[in-house]
Amino acid sequence: MILCRTIPELQKLTTEAHATGQSIGLVPTMGALHEGHASLIKACHQENTISIVSIFVNPTQFGPNEDYDKYPRSFAKDCQTAEKAGADIIFTPAADELYPSKDMTWVEVTGDITKVLCGRTRPIHFRGVTTIITKLFNLIQPDKAYFGQKDAQQVEVLRKMVSDLFIPVELRIMPIIRESDGLAKSSRNAYLTPAEKTATLILYKSLQKAKAIFTAGERNPDNILKTVQQIIESEPLSSIDYIEIHGLPALTPLTDIIDKTALLAVAVKFGNTRLIDNIILEV
Amino acid sequence: MILCRTIPELQKLTTEAHATGQSIGLVPTMGALHEGHASLIKACHQENTISIVSIFVNPTQFGPNEDYDKYPRSFAKDCQTAEKAGADIIFTPAADELYPSKDMTWVEVTGDITKVLCGRTRPIHFRGVTTIITKLFNLIQPDKAYFGQKDAQQVEVLRKMVSDLFIPVELRIMPIIRESDGLAKSSRNAYLTPAEKTATLILYKSLQKAKAIFTAGERNPDNILKTVQQIIESEPLSSIDYIEIHGLPALTPLTDIIDKTALLAVAVKFGNTRLIDNIILEV
Repeated sequence: MILCRTIPELQKLTTEAHATGQSIGLVPTMGALHEGHASLIKACHQENTISIVSIFVNPTQFGPNEDYDKYPRSFAKDCQTAEKAGADIIFTPAADELYPSKDMTWVEVTGDITKVLCGRTRPIHFRGVTTIITKLFNLIQPDKAYFGQKDAQQVEVLRKMVSDLFIPVELRIMPIIRESDGLAKSSRNAYLTPAEKTATLILYKSLQKAKAIFTAGERNPDNILKTVQQIIESEPLSSIDYIEIHGLPALTPLTDIIDKTALLAVAVKFGNTRLIDNIILEV
Repeated sequence: MILCRTIPELQKLTTEAHATGQSIGLVPTMGALHEGHASLIKACHQENTISIVSIFVNPTQFGPNEDYDKYPRSFAKDCQTAEKAGADIIFTPAADELYPSKDMTWVEVTGDITKVLCGRTRPIHFRGVTTIITKLFNLIQPDKAYFGQKDAQQVEVLRKMVSDLFIPVELRIMPIIRESDGLAKSSRNAYLTPAEKTATLILYKSLQKAKAIFTAGERNPDNILKTVQQIIESEPLSSIDYIEIHGLPALTPLTDIIDKTALLAVAVKFGNTRLIDNIILEV
């Protein structure tokens, strides 16, 4: 596995790969790699000649009061995880190389798709995501790029960006990886105290219940939301940020009846740690 | 010359070209082609295997009170001009194919670079330009793209976008083409009455005078601006929008003394027609 810390080092390798017709897969990450990331890297390794994992904690997607400074960093361990999963290249540039100018060029997806769900409390988050991903796409020109369904809204926003701007890349979306007890793998799980970690089990439990009543025929979104809310509120350590249902693809509004595939997504704080999770309700 | 009216038609050709290693040059235009455009197409033809000219009057770069509806359209003549200059492909898509969604994904260069000069009175103009050019770059993936120095601010904004987002394209900037009397070629010259057209000669005259006093040693930007202002104001049919000097590259602020290469740029209305022109003052 090759470690590239600068753009010229990276582009020497990608230029060679493109010139010789080798396919390139990209897994963009912020490090703190867990089994969710590993599943993306494995898929990337299987489907491409060269697998590149970027590790970059992107400052522009964090709000002023968010956890940029304390976001978990574990570079040595990340390299092991990535290599074991099949990464050929790790790209880990300095922030000032990816953001050379204080006057930014932004790539921004507008509309409800970036205003609902996490967009309500994280108004600049997706602008930061779409901007950094555009930079990585342009630098690497991957054939395929891998993202996790865990970040369901990010997936829809990136799909819209790629479609609207005609970016020549195939997005590959991989399923959520969970702990055996149901907690979705997340770098932010490292923040949880043992008591909070136990409390988080309520998330998957609530989503499973929603799926069960949906499968049993419940099609009223308000009834489903109310059920999920009641279950999560039964856990004293939880504090709900949002519980929402939107149409898929593109997080379009639903009517009174769920008559198309829908995304049920939640964001809940446990102590200072805000976790997201989701489930797809397929009609 | 091949005429492509849809993205699939275009991409069939560009995919083939990329697969066989042919270089592609792109000349993005809004039609109403004149000798300025022809000079870009000729350069493109000389420097690339395949020359693509896009003809698309881009709605998102016009403000609500600007001339989108009456912008000159002369498609049949444009095809002749483009073919004569060496175009291999004309790409002229419908607006709803380039803008499939009412919720836009914008590419926006921020900072003074888009706020000075035309940015003062055309606040959404450059956002529209950078967005459509990004779409064309992604669709075509040209090796080189050609723009005229006439749109000096556009050139600097696009240079910054390409640099900030690491877009894999080489920008080729071609000199201003002028009528024999000095008027810079522009599609909007078609709007001028004969009396206005005569009056516009004051623009080039004022820029030439500025260059002369600069060459003679004048380094105070205010003195140069005053000289240009007095000359343009001597023409009764003129109405000044702006006369400004900024540092190059990137339209950075100047101090009291012009101690680096600078851009002297003007926007002046003659009747309802707003024209821009510029000259580079090279230290």
